[in-house]
Amino acid sequence: MNFCSNCGNPVQLTIPEDDDRKRFCCNHCGMIHYQNPRLVVGAIPEWQDRILLCRRDIEPQRGLWTLPAGYLENGESVEDGARRETREETKAEIIDLSPYFLADLVPINQLYLIFRCQLARPEFAITRESSELRLFREEEIPWDEIAFQVIRVTLQKYFSDRAAGTFPFRNEVVRIALNCPAEPAP
Amino acid sequence: MNFCSNCGNPVQLTIPEDDDRKRFCCNHCGMIHYQNPRLVVGAIPEWQDRILLCRRDIEPQRGLWTLPAGYLENGESVEDGARRETREETKAEIIDLSPYFLADLVPINQLYLIFRCQLARPEFAITRESSELRLFREEEIPWDEIAFQVIRVTLQKYFSDRAAGTFPFRNEVVRIALNCPAEPAP
Ligand SMILES: [Zn+2]
Ligand SMILES: [Zn+2]
Repeated sequence: MNFCSNCGNPVQLTIPEDDDRKRFCCNHCGMIHYQNPRLVVGAIPEWQDRILLCRRDIEPQRGLWTLPAGYLENGESVEDGARRETREETKAEIIDLSPYFLADLVPINQLYLIFRCQLARPEFAITRESSELRLFREEEIPWDEIAFQVIRVTLQKYFSDRAAGTFPFRNEVVRIALNCPAEPAP
Repeated sequence: MNFCSNCGNPVQLTIPEDDDRKRFCCNHCGMIHYQNPRLVVGAIPEWQDRILLCRRDIEPQRGLWTLPAGYLENGESVEDGARRETREETKAEIIDLSPYFLADLVPINQLYLIFRCQLARPEFAITRESSELRLFREEEIPWDEIAFQVIRVTLQKYFSDRAAGTFPFRNEVVRIALNCPAEPAP
């Protein structure tokens, strides 16, 4: 951030009064520009004993497999966001959403909220973002071709919990390298 | 948003290529300025059969009671954020955090993530933001003086779940009026 989005004058990185950390501040109009982590919503769409993965057709990590996920938009609930992202990336409809994993990607200021859910029907199709969609049994998961560390951790927890027969809500900091590829801007 | 925070030129509200909703776009440097919901983290600090509430000493809703909560900052986990906000508003230390309620405030683009937790010690003190701190039994809760609808709903769910003896993770859209007072900027 270089300029004030309110008045167009240059901003300074400085600690405002009654605060304890540096913010982008505009000395001209007085606006303080806070920056906060962004929430990614995603889904583990189940059909019988299989789950739906998408082969990415966009960078980063084009060609690798992931779960449908993307930034939550203003004006939508987290469930609606997960449904929208799944529709956009797989043309599939999901139902029976249940919050499962809140993954904290602290170094890159992202949070992933992943829902378990069911496919309404075993119907999906390629999209601008996905070159291939496929239902995988656990033993078929392409572990060496998973696009992002947070998706790998999500899948590991999911299959481990499934084996144990219970899916408690989980919240964890997922350690990723700063230079690790992550979801791009929406 | 009126000006590009990257280059300082005026932005236009228009639908970018490969997108389906209006964004603030800069025709000069090409940057698209996405706006996303913000996450508030908060706590229900327990001490034996009582919980800690704060009487607000700042606007909005000065004088009314609330739970410690505030915007998650870049570079901190959700648990660390809830601990920091509790410390800032009550000078209390909390332990044993467990995610409890994700409240979706869709019309104002806010999400509240509230943790159940324990006070490390029954020690707290007034702060710049809180004129009074007090441990309340359920029958003592000042229901007519709760600052925000989302806090009221959180407390209702908490006592209802406590009576039932179980605290499942909950995610719900909390209906609030657009002109309803909500947490201010951090
Ligand atoms: Zn300004
Ligand atoms: Zn620009």
